[in-house]
Amino acid sequence: MTERANGPVAATTYRGEAIENTHVAHVAVVDAQGGLLYAFGDPLRVTLARSAAKPAQALAVLETGALERFGFEEADLALMCGSHNSEDRHIERARQMIAKAHASEADLRCGGHPPISDAVYRSWIKRDFTPGAVCSNCSGKHAGMLAGAQAIGADVQDYHKADHPLQLRVKHTVADVCDLPDEAVQWAVDGCNLPTPAFPLERLARLYAKLADAAAQSSESSARSAALARIYRAMTRYPEMVAGEGRFCTALMRSFDGALVGKLGAEASYAIGVRPNGQTARLGAKGALGIAVKVEDGNTTVLYAVVAALLTQLDIGTTAQRAQLESFRAPPMRNTMGVETGRLVLSVALEPVGAKR
Amino acid sequence: MTERANGPVAATTYRGEAIENTHVAHVAVVDAQGGLLYAFGDPLRVTLARSAAKPAQALAVLETGALERFGFEEADLALMCGSHNSEDRHIERARQMIAKAHASEADLRCGGHPPISDAVYRSWIKRDFTPGAVCSNCSGKHAGMLAGAQAIGADVQDYHKADHPLQLRVKHTVADVCDLPDEAVQWAVDGCNLPTPAFPLERLARLYAKLADAAAQSSESSARSAALARIYRAMTRYPEMVAGEGRFCTALMRSFDGALVGKLGAEASYAIGVRPNGQTARLGAKGALGIAVKVEDGNTTVLYAVVAALLTQLDIGTTAQRAQLESFRAPPMRNTMGVETGRLVLSVALEPVGAKR
Repeated sequence: MTERANGPVAATTYRGEAIENTHVAHVAVVDAQGGLLYAFGDPLRVTLARSAAKPAQALAVLETGALERFGFEEADLALMCGSHNSEDRHIERARQMIAKAHASEADLRCGGHPPISDAVYRSWIKRDFTPGAVCSNCSGKHAGMLAGAQAIGADVQDYHKADHPLQLRVKHTVADVCDLPDEAVQWAVDGCNLPTPAFPLERLARLYAKLADAAAQSSESSARSAALARIYRAMTRYPEMVAGEGRFCTALMRSFDGALVGKLGAEASYAIGVRPNGQTARLGAKGALGIAVKVEDGNTTVLYAVVAALLTQLDIGTTAQRAQLESFRAPPMRNTMGVETGRLVLSVALEPVGAKR
Repeated sequence: MTERANGPVAATTYRGEAIENTHVAHVAVVDAQGGLLYAFGDPLRVTLARSAAKPAQALAVLETGALERFGFEEADLALMCGSHNSEDRHIERARQMIAKAHASEADLRCGGHPPISDAVYRSWIKRDFTPGAVCSNCSGKHAGMLAGAQAIGADVQDYHKADHPLQLRVKHTVADVCDLPDEAVQWAVDGCNLPTPAFPLERLARLYAKLADAAAQSSESSARSAALARIYRAMTRYPEMVAGEGRFCTALMRSFDGALVGKLGAEASYAIGVRPNGQTARLGAKGALGIAVKVEDGNTTVLYAVVAALLTQLDIGTTAQRAQLESFRAPPMRNTMGVETGRLVLSVALEPVGAKR
C-alpha cells in the first residue's frame, strides 16, 4: 500500500496548547461560467456530493412536469432539496407530498433512521417511536421521485434503482447541469438508497453558481434557467425545510435572506451559490459565485467552521450576517463541567487561481 | 497560515468505487526497554493520550497506598483505568468506591454527560434520568483520586486542580513512568476536568510495554514493577470494567485472555501492551511489546480498524483471537435499507525502524 498525502490542513483543534486533531479540506470557488477563481487544496477532488446534489436531483424531477401535475407547493420543492431534521413539520409535509402523488408510504424505498436532531431523537425514544421511511431525512427527495416517476409514465416500483427510467433521467440531468458528459460522473448508492453522484469539487461549486445566477436573471433565458431559479427561490424562502432547528443550512440561509443558497452533503461536503453583487464582481466572478468544500475525514463540525470562515475571507454579506454563524465558525469546546478546554484554529486560506476555463 | 501535511493516509472509505473519506494516522511500536521497532507516519507525534493515560494516573494513586487504605478491590482498580459505558454495574461500583473512600458524590469534580453506550442513553431518556458526576465514564478514575488525595493527607476539595498535591504527584508519576523529565510532558484539561497529558506517541507505547513487561516478570524487581503488574492484571481480569458491552477494549482483552492490555483515549488514541512471547521476540522486542496509535482526525471507527489491522500485521495472537475483532477491522457500511454501500480500505503499513535507543 502506498502512503498518500491527502491535502492541506484546514483546521486544527487544540486542547490547551497541545494539538489534538488536524483536518484536511479542499475548496473550489468558481463563477457561473465555470471559471475557477480561488482554491485551497485540490479543487478537482472527485467528491461524493451526497445531499449537496439534491438540487440537481430535484431539477430532474422538476423538468418532468411532476410539480405542476401533482400540485406540489414551493415548500415541497424546498423539502425535495432538504436533509431535514425529521421534525413533525417535515414528516407531515412529506406525507402530504406522497398523498398528492397518489402514492403511499409503502412505496418509499428509503429506510427510517435515528434523526439528525437530538431533540427529535429524544422525543422518539420517550414514546417508543420506530421511524418509518417517511421519517428519513431524505423523504422529501423520495416523495419527489414518486411523483417524477409517474410524470414520465414509468412504474413507481423500483424508482430508486440505477436502471429505472427516472434515475437514467436524473443521471443525465445531473451531468448536464454540471457541464459534464454522462460518463464523467461516477455513481454510488446513497444512505437513503438512491443513486448518488461523484464529480470534481469545482463542478459542485458550478452547480450552485448556476442556481444563484438563474435566480438573479430578470428575464429567464431558458426553461432550464427558470427551473434553477425556482429551486433557488424555494430553498431560500423555506430554509427550515432544507434542514431545521439549530442546523447550519437553515441558519445560513435565514441570515443571508435570499442572497445565497447553501446545502450540506453527508460526510462533510458543502456548496453555496451567491447571487451576483458588487462583491462577487470584485472577486472576479462573471455572474454568480459558487463555493464548494469537502473535508477529507467527513467531520461536519469542521466543515461548518471552514464554510463560515470562507464567507469572511471572500467578504460575502455583512459582518452582522456572518456574526449569526459565529457558533459554527468558532464552536465552543467545553468539557462536562463547562470549562473551556481548547479551541478550533482555522488555516484554510484561499489562493487565486490564474487559469480560467 | 501555512499548509501543513499531517501524515500518511492509513484508511480510505469508498462508496461504490469513489473515495468518500481519507484518514491519516501515526503508529509507534516499541519494546519494554524503549527501543522503537516499527512505525507508520510520525511515531514522535506529540499526542494527547486522554483516557489512554488512565493506567499511569492510576499508578500514581496506587503508589499513595490508597487502595490498601480504603479496601479497593482489583475490579475497582480496573474501573480506575476505564472509560466505562455508564452501565448500572459501572455506576454501582463507582458509588461503592466513593463510599469506601469516605467521600460523597458531591465531592466529585467531573460532570455527567450522555453515555458512550447508546443502549444506556436510550434507557436514561425513557426514564427522564439526568446523569450526575458518578455517571461520567471517568467516575472510576475520579473515585480513585478522592482516595489518593486522602492517602497523601491532602484536602479532598479541588483534587482536580493542576496545583493540588495529588495532581503534582500524578504529573511526576506520568512523566517518570514514560521515562521523561517532568517538563517534557504538556498538560491540558480533560473532558472530565482532570489534567490530561500530551507526550510523544512512542512514549505511550512504552508505558503499555512496561505494563505488559511487569505482568510477565516472575519475581517483581521493584515496587513500581509490582504496581504496573497489578494494573495490568486488574484491566485484563476485568475488561468489562474498562469499557463495557459492545466496546472494543472489552472485546480485545476478552479475546486475548490476558496476553495483552489495551485502552482507548478520546479523539482516537489507542495503546496496547503485549506480554513477551515467541512472536514479540521475533519482532525484535526486548521484553514486552508496546503499540500506540493516533488517528489525526479523531475518528474512533477508523482507529479500531487500524488497531485490529496492526495486530494482524504484527501477527499478535491467533487467527481465531483476531477474528473476534473482525467487525471492528472491517466495519459494515450499510445504508438505511441494509444495502452495502462501500468499504473501509486500510493502507496502514508498519515499517521497521533502524535506530534503536
